[in-house]
Amino acid sequence: MIAGSASSTHAPIRLGMVGGGTGAFIGAVHRIAARLDGEFQLVAGALSSTPEKARASAEALGLARSYDDFAAMAKGEARRKDGIEAVAIVTPNHMHAAPAIEFLKRGIHVICDKPLTATLAEARKLAAAAEKSGALFILTHNYTGYPMVRQARAMVGASDLGRIRLVQVEYVQDWLTQAAEKSGSKQAEWRTDPERSGAGGATGDIGTHAYNLACFVSGLTPQALAADLSSFVPGRPLDDNAHVLLRFHGGAKGMLWASQVAPGNENGLRLRVYGEKGGLDWAQEDPNRLWFTPYGAEKRLITRNGVGAGPEAARMSRIPPGHPEGYLEAFANIYAEAARAIRAFRTGAAPPAGTLYPTLADGLAGMRFVDACVRSSTRNAAWVTL
Amino acid sequence: MIAGSASSTHAPIRLGMVGGGTGAFIGAVHRIAARLDGEFQLVAGALSSTPEKARASAEALGLARSYDDFAAMAKGEARRKDGIEAVAIVTPNHMHAAPAIEFLKRGIHVICDKPLTATLAEARKLAAAAEKSGALFILTHNYTGYPMVRQARAMVGASDLGRIRLVQVEYVQDWLTQAAEKSGSKQAEWRTDPERSGAGGATGDIGTHAYNLACFVSGLTPQALAADLSSFVPGRPLDDNAHVLLRFHGGAKGMLWASQVAPGNENGLRLRVYGEKGGLDWAQEDPNRLWFTPYGAEKRLITRNGVGAGPEAARMSRIPPGHPEGYLEAFANIYAEAARAIRAFRTGAAPPAGTLYPTLADGLAGMRFVDACVRSSTRNAAWVTL
Amino acid sequence: MIAGSASSTHAPIRLGMVGGGTGAFIGAVHRIAARLDGEFQLVAGALSSTPEKARASAEALGLARSYDDFAAMAKGEARRKDGIEAVAIVTPNHMHAAPAIEFLKRGIHVICDKPLTATLAEARKLAAAAEKSGALFILTHNYTGYPMVRQARAMVGASDLGRIRLVQVEYVQDWLTQAAEKSGSKQAEWRTDPERSGAGGATGDIGTHAYNLACFVSGLTPQALAADLSSFVPGRPLDDNAHVLLRFHGGAKGMLWASQVAPGNENGLRLRVYGEKGGLDWAQEDPNRLWFTPYGAEKRLITRNGVGAGPEAARMSRIPPGHPEGYLEAFANIYAEAARAIRAFRTGAAPPAGTLYPTLADGLAGMRFVDACVRSSTRNAAWVTL
Amino acid sequence: MIAGSASSTHAPIRLGMVGGGTGAFIGAVHRIAARLDGEFQLVAGALSSTPEKARASAEALGLARSYDDFAAMAKGEARRKDGIEAVAIVTPNHMHAAPAIEFLKRGIHVICDKPLTATLAEARKLAAAAEKSGALFILTHNYTGYPMVRQARAMVGASDLGRIRLVQVEYVQDWLTQAAEKSGSKQAEWRTDPERSGAGGATGDIGTHAYNLACFVSGLTPQALAADLSSFVPGRPLDDNAHVLLRFHGGAKGMLWASQVAPGNENGLRLRVYGEKGGLDWAQEDPNRLWFTPYGAEKRLITRNGVGAGPEAARMSRIPPGHPEGYLEAFANIYAEAARAIRAFRTGAAPPAGTLYPTLADGLAGMRFVDACVRSSTRNAAWVTL
Repeated sequence: MIAGSASSTHAPIRLGMVGGGTGAFIGAVHRIAARLDGEFQLVAGALSSTPEKARASAEALGLARSYDDFAAMAKGEARRKDGIEAVAIVTPNHMHAAPAIEFLKRGIHVICDKPLTATLAEARKLAAAAEKSGALFILTHNYTGYPMVRQARAMVGASDLGRIRLVQVEYVQDWLTQAAEKSGSKQAEWRTDPERSGAGGATGDIGTHAYNLACFVSGLTPQALAADLSSFVPGRPLDDNAHVLLRFHGGAKGMLWASQVAPGNENGLRLRVYGEKGGLDWAQEDPNRLWFTPYGAEKRLITRNGVGAGPEAARMSRIPPGHPEGYLEAFANIYAEAARAIRAFRTGAAPPAGTLYPTLADGLAGMRFVDACVRSSTRNAAWVTL
Repeated sequence: MIAGSASSTHAPIRLGMVGGGTGAFIGAVHRIAARLDGEFQLVAGALSSTPEKARASAEALGLARSYDDFAAMAKGEARRKDGIEAVAIVTPNHMHAAPAIEFLKRGIHVICDKPLTATLAEARKLAAAAEKSGALFILTHNYTGYPMVRQARAMVGASDLGRIRLVQVEYVQDWLTQAAEKSGSKQAEWRTDPERSGAGGATGDIGTHAYNLACFVSGLTPQALAADLSSFVPGRPLDDNAHVLLRFHGGAKGMLWASQVAPGNENGLRLRVYGEKGGLDWAQEDPNRLWFTPYGAEKRLITRNGVGAGPEAARMSRIPPGHPEGYLEAFANIYAEAARAIRAFRTGAAPPAGTLYPTLADGLAGMRFVDACVRSSTRNAAWVTL
Repeated sequence: MIAGSASSTHAPIRLGMVGGGTGAFIGAVHRIAARLDGEFQLVAGALSSTPEKARASAEALGLARSYDDFAAMAKGEARRKDGIEAVAIVTPNHMHAAPAIEFLKRGIHVICDKPLTATLAEARKLAAAAEKSGALFILTHNYTGYPMVRQARAMVGASDLGRIRLVQVEYVQDWLTQAAEKSGSKQAEWRTDPERSGAGGATGDIGTHAYNLACFVSGLTPQALAADLSSFVPGRPLDDNAHVLLRFHGGAKGMLWASQVAPGNENGLRLRVYGEKGGLDWAQEDPNRLWFTPYGAEKRLITRNGVGAGPEAARMSRIPPGHPEGYLEAFANIYAEAARAIRAFRTGAAPPAGTLYPTLADGLAGMRFVDACVRSSTRNAAWVTL
Repeated sequence: MIAGSASSTHAPIRLGMVGGGTGAFIGAVHRIAARLDGEFQLVAGALSSTPEKARASAEALGLARSYDDFAAMAKGEARRKDGIEAVAIVTPNHMHAAPAIEFLKRGIHVICDKPLTATLAEARKLAAAAEKSGALFILTHNYTGYPMVRQARAMVGASDLGRIRLVQVEYVQDWLTQAAEKSGSKQAEWRTDPERSGAGGATGDIGTHAYNLACFVSGLTPQALAADLSSFVPGRPLDDNAHVLLRFHGGAKGMLWASQVAPGNENGLRLRVYGEKGGLDWAQEDPNRLWFTPYGAEKRLITRNGVGAGPEAARMSRIPPGHPEGYLEAFANIYAEAARAIRAFRTGAAPPAGTLYPTLADGLAGMRFVDACVRSSTRNAAWVTL
């Protein structure tokens, strides 16, 4: 049976948004994800650091309330009876920590884009603020919302692969093959700008996704890494390619490759995990299928909601096998988990069994990953403890 | 550039629903599709023919108004200032015509599931009612909402394949391999029941989709068909497998295979079109990619929003290449087209250029297809003119 | 364990060849296939109907003896103590029967290319001659030599699919999309010439392969067919596309599509078989893998010599899984089977258990298939009993 | 046009073999490869270090002459007028150098399995002997014989990718997932035995293939590597998994992964190369296809002998597109290149244009690779200059 995802008997949760004005890619994604299951209603926003643009965007989206900046919004919403319960932060990396702290301080839950911050120092500050606040912090490492990623994690957890030996992960793109940052791409501009992105280029933007996914599925804790970062496009101050060796506690090893200069690759996130008893292979561009290869048996293809897929995948899925679900559904699953957690938070209850989403701990781990990559690479790919 | 899909500056369109109570698969799909782009708000429903179930479902969904039957709903909503502008009809086939006529009569637009009706006679009655009404009728042949299906249609239209010679289409499933209708599957029960489904089993349920897709992409008009229908599961009164030869006006030919008894197939809808200059190959389970094989050149893989994909695909898409969109997004695209048409209807303007959705004509064509298949098969697969 | 294929303790079998002079595609294929396992040595030939070309070709190949025509060769070789034991006939279709009869008459085994002949009448004459002779007749329906085709046949035979319901087969090419026969392609010239090819175009050239494969794997006996043949290229006297409905004894049904005008397809031979308990899917262009989809279980991919592949496949294979074997190996497998049969024939013993190759019966079946297709198509795709 | 491969007007070259007795996998492969194009005839052998087994194997294969050891064979054959011109050495790694030197000394060409030797010291000794001898030395890095590998190399050479930035290569297997060396597998026994294999396990057995392929296609010269080798199976003295970072002269970088403990992988050799203008992707298990992804254009699939494939691939191919060629054909291509070189050697002429095969230089490079991997890994994956 396919479990219905988050069809609510309750009113939608009131949501605000920081960043995500007209034209921003990820803001639109968050809005669809918030809306898809009917769990959230976007009512307020500080959608741009340029007040006119913020207002125009809010109007275009039909928002009830528009603010000139996040501070005003935090203050204003906290004061209202019908103020927002949660806020989505979808600004560039260097603008995550400040608004997040502001909302957390006022008990407003934060749903924040990744990577957590631009610097490890900021990340630690944010973590401290979150701890003090008690409000929820959800990091949109959205790939963890794919049903077959949950399935993979469940299978590793159930020891279907035996003790894990190898974790091979890659996230490969091509959109920065040329100097797009010099030909007008806003996305490319801030993604390659250390001021806004932090110390990691490909490492921060997509390497953190790959790293998070590898840990999420394998359940392993990284112990050290050795990274060789490159900036292949002349004049680019941040890495556009990362070659990383991984060692995990317990003896497993891995490789991580993140690249934005590999022509022909769009969002080539792929994870392979191998243990003593079997292997798993999953690719984001074909997300409804998971290869399971038990040693000494036929290779098996498990499909979303098909035979062999368990409840962990089913609760993340809305439709029968053979009808593909994709990126937006996976993103919406993170929002659905957030909704479950927020509704439970209201009453002080524990969220429903199985509720699972990336948190500040994952965000901190990601920042430590970026930091370690940069330090390792600076030292000629020496091992750096995580 | 990726065109934003239907981000509205307007209030959502008020939507009602007939059928689709708790547990119904397709009702939930319609609700997500209606919600995904924020273009519709579900406010009223006659969600079940059992009044208590209707009420409970409406409450669970937080609907403003619940009705005991569609007639009451049509009357009630037509009377209200804030009544629904459009209604989604998601009942079994035999229950499409009556409510549709009731709402159309009152100028309420109808978004109706396929196949159009259970019988060709009903379909004709409905067509007449729609013509009289002037209100819009949108048939959710949802596969026409996939971006790469639009791309394929555009390429055929631009003569990239030259004059079309061959159309090979198949829709293959396995869920009726055994007598699921006798072991408690509600879906299987009505899908195999002539009273509720009409004369076509697999033919009506999925054959109409395949037929519609073939015509939609190829732009060809079928001239005749020869069909060999089978009921492989003992005691099943409707076909569970259809083998069909097609002839189109202008000389093209084709094959259509629809099956619900082919183990290992989930929703294997695949279309291949070949012309004098090239070919196209698209599969629903991998919907973000389209093979284009110009004769005498390398095979080319066009990805959604990737190089080679044109504006007809881009306007049906929300996110960059490499991030898969799926079934729900395609379904939502039909709703987004409906929204554009409805908003234009209000002012008497033409819908925005490019607006395209399946209509009553497609529904009638589908019913003629089912009728022709059954008649042909009865006469030992003799050719029947369409 | 991988069984070694035909590593012989004996001297190679002396082989002759009719046709296959320099430049002929299929002659070279037969020679490699004969040589690959060291089972045959080509020593004599009538390689062309043009004596000078025959001689030049024989010299280029280092043949011991060259003849001006097959009749002289049959006579000459039959007289020698060290004469050939077997002859490969690789001429166009209309030149199969005469030489075959000539060699069979003299007790020389015949390895003959498909389709059996150009006409059904010739085929019957040849069959009569073969019966009288007692010598062996091997028809190179080479696709039956693929290990995973043997695997598929074995699985159907072992009832892994249950009772068979559906057989879907297609063989799709694009090399006749344009009028190649008018621009100097020798292959295209005779393949589209009724004098040399017989009544079937695509039907005879590749349709017979598809038909043979469907029967070989499914074990079913066709009962009737309905065919819609087309010649899409103007002025082409033979069909270049065949749409065929099939009915088998016992109630199974099928579709067969053979086309040489579908751009983007090279040798797209694919077979899908579905029974009450499961399905199989095999494609010639990816021949080392076989999908097995038992109903109600995960889809399984069986690889050549991998887990799940049985002895019927192993005896047709030379190397471990993951190292692909292809067309030439499959062709060589037919020769290896022929060698086993010929060596057994010498002593009057039965060939080793499992020896299996296409015979005159298959060739006759293929000719009946072509004949039935043409007759059915002439009668507007009426059913014709096989 | 498809160039015929090595159809000879000459008598076959007389070949001897060292190792490769009954039951040895790679000996049988060499024999088929030597025979496939009719360029070689195996006439003599020292097929086993156990004289009885050598004799029995020779008899089973119908060899004219069997020797008890390679030294006797070198002496004996050198003396005969009809002695062998070339010898295939197919023993375990530690038994390559001694026989090779013995034959080279006598002017007999050597076709030797890889890796070159067990130790770098041996490799250097062998290189010196080869230089002195003047006879040819062909190393069977067989994957360089695949047509589409040649195509890839030609495209890189023609600057279709622009300046190369990234080389990602992996060779992944699963056959040593468990301690097969302790359960009777002869292959596993010597492959995991430092005495017979040398210092590299997976590194030597398959890592050298991956390394060779990466260099062969990219045309780059490695500058340094950092390797993290593992022996996941307890008690295994050699590595069964290698994680390697690569740096090339000129600034390109790469990753190499070789594993024999990744369940579900058979011979997963895959190479991806990315330059400023485009990418290439090739996989050994699907060897007839090559992805070419020019930046800013549709992805293109080039098939063997299809449109877009050039003469470098065509000369390595025997049959039309869509009929797969595999491992044995690629292996035979190395033998065909060897034959061309040997025939040219006889007359002192240069081999035909385009003749290309792996040589001692490649063998030495492979041994330096293994040596560097081991040294780097011992030093905690420090960079080691190549």
